[in-house]
Amino acid sequence: MGEEDALKFLAKRFKVTQKEVLMGIGDDSAVVKIKEKNCLVASTDVLVEGVHFLPGTQSARQLGKKAVLVAISDIGAMGASPAYLLCSLGCRREDAKQFIEDLSQGVEDGCREFGLCLIGGNLSESQTVFISVTALGEIDGGKIVRRSGAAVGDDIHVTGTLGDSALGLRVLSGGHGSITRGYGRFVSRHFEPTPRIAAGRMLAERGIASSMIDISDGLLRDLGRLTSAHGLGAEVELRDIPLSPDFLSVSSSFCEDSYSLAICGGEDYELLFTSQAHARASVREVSRLCEVPISRIGLVTGGGKIRFLDGSGEVFYDTEGFEHFC
Amino acid sequence: MGEEDALKFLAKRFKVTQKEVLMGIGDDSAVVKIKEKNCLVASTDVLVEGVHFLPGTQSARQLGKKAVLVAISDIGAMGASPAYLLCSLGCRREDAKQFIEDLSQGVEDGCREFGLCLIGGNLSESQTVFISVTALGEIDGGKIVRRSGAAVGDDIHVTGTLGDSALGLRVLSGGHGSITRGYGRFVSRHFEPTPRIAAGRMLAERGIASSMIDISDGLLRDLGRLTSAHGLGAEVELRDIPLSPDFLSVSSSFCEDSYSLAICGGEDYELLFTSQAHARASVREVSRLCEVPISRIGLVTGGGKIRFLDGSGEVFYDTEGFEHFC
Repeated sequence: MGEEDALKFLAKRFKVTQKEVLMGIGDDSAVVKIKEKNCLVASTDVLVEGVHFLPGTQSARQLGKKAVLVAISDIGAMGASPAYLLCSLGCRREDAKQFIEDLSQGVEDGCREFGLCLIGGNLSESQTVFISVTALGEIDGGKIVRRSGAAVGDDIHVTGTLGDSALGLRVLSGGHGSITRGYGRFVSRHFEPTPRIAAGRMLAERGIASSMIDISDGLLRDLGRLTSAHGLGAEVELRDIPLSPDFLSVSSSFCEDSYSLAICGGEDYELLFTSQAHARASVREVSRLCEVPISRIGLVTGGGKIRFLDGSGEVFYDTEGFEHFC
Repeated sequence: MGEEDALKFLAKRFKVTQKEVLMGIGDDSAVVKIKEKNCLVASTDVLVEGVHFLPGTQSARQLGKKAVLVAISDIGAMGASPAYLLCSLGCRREDAKQFIEDLSQGVEDGCREFGLCLIGGNLSESQTVFISVTALGEIDGGKIVRRSGAAVGDDIHVTGTLGDSALGLRVLSGGHGSITRGYGRFVSRHFEPTPRIAAGRMLAERGIASSMIDISDGLLRDLGRLTSAHGLGAEVELRDIPLSPDFLSVSSSFCEDSYSLAICGGEDYELLFTSQAHARASVREVSRLCEVPISRIGLVTGGGKIRFLDGSGEVFYDTEGFEHFC
């Protein structure tokens, strides 16, 4: 498939129906209207072969969808609504046609699920496969939830359960014959995270979250970005960290300590946020309305330390999460 | 340099001063205000090692700047003003620190020259170096100049001169000892194109251009996107195609036919646009005000053919421009 043909294929597949999109794929640039009073929210993320995924472990379709989910998760973590995507794809010439078709299907899956519109992109030959997605969204400027904003005494909350994706990655790389042995659920969580868009938006709109981030590099590191990066600390009760029953029952086969996997593993794409104690009922309400479990796991403290406490004494994890350039 | 350190380095280097940027590098997403009545214009482009550039032929700084120039050229071709960039970089771990520093310098060069603000990005290890830039800009929705819009009888114009960049690429790949032999100017044009932002904006604002594109894949192919893609044709006088005196004097050393290089070579990043005959004085005015040469090279015709005419008879070039996936 020539680049020209590939672009025609994409323009047809991602035909624009939203009236806000004055120009989608097919011109030099896309043009969209931003609603009055709203601000533009923009973020870019990339998945690179050999770094974020290994050849042969997941389909191009899964990869395309994951690239979308990961990119919009960052938009959701500001409390904003993702709306538009631009996608830059590099792949080898020899399997370009099938790869582009399959990957597009995955991008389309993600777009359909979250009401997104692919408005631009480009294709290039590359010896290393990569997919870079820029996600654009909108938010009322007064409602933005930043990484800064937490205060001493704020509650720390997290959506969903932690560690499932990291366990999936262990399953994949450990060659445990994964899916047939009942670990498919974790692999799925790794391939297909669930960005908490609706919950993030509601936490922002209602002014509940004082700071927020999506957990991509593990609870420890991302909690540091809300607290120690701003001279604050945190105390987290290990027993309050939400782990799925499946995770609890099998994680010990893959690591000595289930909690360290849940704390440092990364790629959870759950929301981690802080809020004032008087907002607890509001947090429960968001959980109920969005049908997303939200767990209170600790408190923001003064000083720069993050401490994970067990029931009896004090545990301090200083393990670093995943580093691309270590 | 760890990813964390690299991001801190970038956040410091690309410190935001514009009040429209509510959040730049350093949070999950960037947030910017779009002016009332304006639309958002977005485009993404990528440079990949081994495809768009060869290792060792240009510095990381040159590469960073070129990635910016190429990306904003697409925004300019809509008649819009580029304002914000998001940059996704993949490079090898072993030379990451120096590479990121040098490339950032080039990105900064481009930003300073065109008043742009880097608002987001990410870094990843990759065995193949790539830099993907998403450029965002603004335009009054009523002023957009699309690729469609030309009509039979419209003049065809082009800014600057064609073929210099393609000649530079020949010099680089031909191992002619280039720069010492006086061909450095062409290599520079290849490494550092001149996006015609001001001219594009003025052509749009004054409603002069009926269709417009930036020439990235060669005059022939990009003229096809304004004409034959919409059932129109074109007649171009070879002698009216603007070639620089330097190009005319040396191009014969690199190819049999100087015109085919100028027509099919690509990467000119000059504006190609159509306008009605009565707008000729206005086109000259734009040329004067923006200090950019603009040449009238032909006419839009009916039918789907693009014909390049010499003084005596008829020449038809059907050579295809550069294809990433052939």
